[in-house]
Amino acid sequence: MIKTEVIKHAGFCFGVERAYNIAKEALLMKNKVYFLGELIHNPDVTEEIKSLGGIFINNIAEATSGTLIIRAHGIPLNELNILKTKELEIIDATCPFVKVPQNKAKEYSESGYFIIIVGDENHPEIKGVQSYVNEKRFIITKNINLLTNDFFKQHHKIAIIAQTTLPFEILKEISSYCIEHTKETLILNSICDATFIRQTETAELSKKADCMIIIGGYKSANSKRLFEIAKENCIDSYQVENTGDLNDDWFNNKKYIGISAGASTPKTVIENVKIKIDLIISKQ
Amino acid sequence: MIKTEVIKHAGFCFGVERAYNIAKEALLMKNKVYFLGELIHNPDVTEEIKSLGGIFINNIAEATSGTLIIRAHGIPLNELNILKTKELEIIDATCPFVKVPQNKAKEYSESGYFIIIVGDENHPEIKGVQSYVNEKRFIITKNINLLTNDFFKQHHKIAIIAQTTLPFEILKEISSYCIEHTKETLILNSICDATFIRQTETAELSKKADCMIIIGGYKSANSKRLFEIAKENCIDSYQVENTGDLNDDWFNNKKYIGISAGASTPKTVIENVKIKIDLIISKQ
Repeated sequence: MIKTEVIKHAGFCFGVERAYNIAKEALLMKNKVYFLGELIHNPDVTEEIKSLGGIFINNIAEATSGTLIIRAHGIPLNELNILKTKELEIIDATCPFVKVPQNKAKEYSESGYFIIIVGDENHPEIKGVQSYVNEKRFIITKNINLLTNDFFKQHHKIAIIAQTTLPFEILKEISSYCIEHTKETLILNSICDATFIRQTETAELSKKADCMIIIGGYKSANSKRLFEIAKENCIDSYQVENTGDLNDDWFNNKKYIGISAGASTPKTVIENVKIKIDLIISKQ
Repeated sequence: MIKTEVIKHAGFCFGVERAYNIAKEALLMKNKVYFLGELIHNPDVTEEIKSLGGIFINNIAEATSGTLIIRAHGIPLNELNILKTKELEIIDATCPFVKVPQNKAKEYSESGYFIIIVGDENHPEIKGVQSYVNEKRFIITKNINLLTNDFFKQHHKIAIIAQTTLPFEILKEISSYCIEHTKETLILNSICDATFIRQTETAELSKKADCMIIIGGYKSANSKRLFEIAKENCIDSYQVENTGDLNDDWFNNKKYIGISAGASTPKTVIENVKIKIDLIISKQ
């Protein structure tokens, strides 16, 4: 008997579910609803929004009148300030867990801390958070090698802010290193529990399964991370965006198929992938 | 050839040397010089102070007029305030590295942090530091088992202050645990480099030696810790206060004698112990 198992906390997290619901309500109630970049890094959700009349733009200049939804990742403060000067209704769907590091970045930098943002500098969440730091007194890194003796000679009061999707071990490593090398270190554990739980469940399942399928947009950082975790424990791990990416050959002679999905993957996509896998297996 | 070797940074640290010099100057220049408890946890220093006319008291009520020396460990704020109301000249020989956690305890508690003091509650330094915390919002512990789920439900903003003689690994363990279980953790690395260097040198020497002698007062926390470190690496490790405690039998058939000494051990005591050991060896 071949088993397929989906982790308990697969798919949409609180902040994504919230942004998705806010967006759908706006699309039903209002005309001209703009989205600055993808609402969620998931191609199926992007198609659904387009079908409901949503307008995707890449630059704030393109939004003139109507409603603009700020996505779950948040946006940089200067962009928000420009948007506020326009004839636009702004609906802020920034995840409340992302609002915390934004506000704390401001508070800490005003208190004289030099800030280490532990995350990916190209991620929209981090672009948003860094914009709240005063006078650009910050670095973005996940690499302790950048924290040299010269760095610690310059900074004696350091605050550390984590990307909400960061693995805790990285925050722990950078924090311990700073505690050892400087007088005062203030750490904001802004890592979201949902990420941790999803990662732990994925690690556990991938230790038991002989094939792992991670469902998530290829642009989604947290989905990529789940794929890496699965791959560490289960060599036959694959990332897919939806049923279209599944390959029948992956399931040859497999006995235990594990399924996990990133925070940006809708429930329906997860269900469809599971149904398709069960179908492939039943034909073997 | 039998080798005896003393670690490079044995004996008096900066703060103890400073307090010792302040005390000696006061004893030479002034009459009626009071000491609240031992200036340094070392019986030879205590004897020397007595011979120079120093008066040891155990209670601030016993000091009426004259000069009072505050020792390197510092004293609680309420005692300092009472002393200030008396007709006494107060000379503060509190180690500058102990002043930092005292002042930061006050600053952090005024900023709303709940404070974890990582140290020994019976140590005079810690009794001093805790007295600077407002409204008694603190605990003193070195044990993460006291940091329960209930504790983290009550406290979301935690500051950690270390005893200056704490091993860094304990600070790291407690910090990481708090970072994982709470939102905001502010860590003051108040550990003194001298302690760390002395401990590292003791660990290194005790790995090479076949007999280790740790010189330090039996009441001295940092000397006891050096003894523990030596014992971990070298089974034939012994703590002595001075030459009187040395036992000839310890050195039978030994080839490499390591010597280390706590922060409260004067140079002359270290020199005398080394001379005595060399003498014992030469007779074997």
